[in-house]
Amino acid sequence: MLPISITLSEHLKEKPQDESKLGFGRIFTDHMFIMDYDPENGWHDARIVPYQNFSMDPASVVIHYGQAIFEGSKCYRTADGSLQLFRPSANFARMTRSAERMGMPALDEETALEGLKQLIRVEADWVPHQEGTSLYIRPTMISTDVQLGVHASKTYRFFIILSPVGSYYKNGLQPVSIYVEDKYVRAVRGGTGFTKCAGNYAASILAGEIAEKKGYSQVLWLDGVEQKYVEEVGSMNMMFAYGNKIVTPMLNGSILPGITRDSILTLARQLGYETEEKRIAISDVFADGHAGKLTEAFGTGTAAVISPVGELLMEDDKLIFQDGKIGPVAQKLYDTLTGIQYGRLPDENHWIVKI
Amino acid sequence: MLPISITLSEHLKEKPQDESKLGFGRIFTDHMFIMDYDPENGWHDARIVPYQNFSMDPASVVIHYGQAIFEGSKCYRTADGSLQLFRPSANFARMTRSAERMGMPALDEETALEGLKQLIRVEADWVPHQEGTSLYIRPTMISTDVQLGVHASKTYRFFIILSPVGSYYKNGLQPVSIYVEDKYVRAVRGGTGFTKCAGNYAASILAGEIAEKKGYSQVLWLDGVEQKYVEEVGSMNMMFAYGNKIVTPMLNGSILPGITRDSILTLARQLGYETEEKRIAISDVFADGHAGKLTEAFGTGTAAVISPVGELLMEDDKLIFQDGKIGPVAQKLYDTLTGIQYGRLPDENHWIVKI
Repeated sequence: MLPISITLSEHLKEKPQDESKLGFGRIFTDHMFIMDYDPENGWHDARIVPYQNFSMDPASVVIHYGQAIFEGSKCYRTADGSLQLFRPSANFARMTRSAERMGMPALDEETALEGLKQLIRVEADWVPHQEGTSLYIRPTMISTDVQLGVHASKTYRFFIILSPVGSYYKNGLQPVSIYVEDKYVRAVRGGTGFTKCAGNYAASILAGEIAEKKGYSQVLWLDGVEQKYVEEVGSMNMMFAYGNKIVTPMLNGSILPGITRDSILTLARQLGYETEEKRIAISDVFADGHAGKLTEAFGTGTAAVISPVGELLMEDDKLIFQDGKIGPVAQKLYDTLTGIQYGRLPDENHWIVKI
Repeated sequence: MLPISITLSEHLKEKPQDESKLGFGRIFTDHMFIMDYDPENGWHDARIVPYQNFSMDPASVVIHYGQAIFEGSKCYRTADGSLQLFRPSANFARMTRSAERMGMPALDEETALEGLKQLIRVEADWVPHQEGTSLYIRPTMISTDVQLGVHASKTYRFFIILSPVGSYYKNGLQPVSIYVEDKYVRAVRGGTGFTKCAGNYAASILAGEIAEKKGYSQVLWLDGVEQKYVEEVGSMNMMFAYGNKIVTPMLNGSILPGITRDSILTLARQLGYETEEKRIAISDVFADGHAGKLTEAFGTGTAAVISPVGELLMEDDKLIFQDGKIGPVAQKLYDTLTGIQYGRLPDENHWIVKI
């Protein structure tokens, strides 16, 4: 593990007064963690420094060719005021898998984890207190070479920034309306769908904007090959409940192997639900939904944890789940996982890392 | 068209002495063109300023979500020392089409073109003199919002940087060896393949690096749906000659609508070749190549103009074209197009813009 130097900021920002207006990813803390990579030295110069702009050459590889990957996780404040992370090592391990696909170096995961812990200690006062709030953690790796050839960069920067974020649900879990995207495609096998690379998100923006204009909050992505099978919803994994059974698309290389997805599947089994990972035809979703066999649909991800789907629209076929309210399976899983994350429930799976 | 202000650099860089060692995209000139966009003002503040680093917040949308598009074209020095651009408006029009797919604003194409012309005038001494050299032009549009929600940025920056580049072929046209990529996929219909967005290039890096380690200079990409049909080669369009007939993949939404591709097809017809744009099965390429009907293969793009394929490998099937030398069709098209670009041949299609 690399030694980590700490340089504290001399001018601390004013912290947000009203935690009900935090929103998502708009405010950043006073410090950041950085380490750099080059082929001679590997990862080096691990440091906590004041949050500051990067000085970037206009010919930087990351600007032109998007060689960038990121992660997202959260730090939670428990009722007794202590701070805890949720499966942070799983995020760093996934970043290494993303890096491999993007021609980038494996992360020094051990130093990244220690850097994150030390950064959180420095920024402890930034972790908000209101129910449902948290400190969002954004680890990022970018190429730093300056040249225009389409090649893997030789040099990289890894950094972690932190953002206090509001409760995703201000008035309890609000089901969302989802639009089945049948024109635009997010990813295809052989591509980069399983990574958290920058380009995946750029490719998804237009469909999301169009859905929003139609009054839908996200799109449900179908597979890139046949455009028949459920992949993800927005930037969340997708799950369906058939009564006591939870079904979710199998990891096929084009969907993100979500850490919340994995946690929810694990908890579901521990709670007595049956789970199945398989290829799910969107036509079966609509048929089973109309027949009343498919009882709930919800997305899973770090930001919302569980996002219940109230309405699913495909062309002119509309499915309403649970009269547009949250269903019992989604509620139970949400309560259980957030209970663990905020320290209200025991952590039997050893997912929590105390700060 | 916006007014364009000019601020000249007080410290000019030393220009490269040896034009045979320029390489590609490693050296940049003294100035750059910039204009900014926001919803209230549209494109504004068009300016030529000293080449300088951007100060970028670590939470910039472009870093995390790759909302960035670019173009590539060249400025050529003719035998009489004058400077000329090749179809620059076609690049700016394509950038607007890329922008639409990526949820970005249409470019102010008129101001971009005038900005480019004025920038080239300021940097005229940077256009190299040796045969085959040129001044590479890199127009780029990036999102500039600072926030972590996956939404289209509201603000953008357009900039043009310039780089003197060497002759792609130091000793005449050198055919390259190409590896047919059957695992990784570059793009799929419904995706972003037809745009010059950053993420397309990030997604292609790994396959290129693997091909290079195997001794191949580029990969030939197959379609994302069936992995059976020819799409592109490296970051070039692909063409095949059947004697006097030139066949190239049709524009299907997942390949780049290359400006060199279009120019070569136009010139080919004017030179008496038959041309056809269609779906091309890679199995037919190998069958026709082994049967001697398919006589040449070559890539087309701004950097190399024409890149003849000497060898094509798919699994353990190897095709050799023209005994590994350049064929007559590729040579004729290369001589014709570069003849027009460098002012040695008349510009009957009105593609040249004199500076």
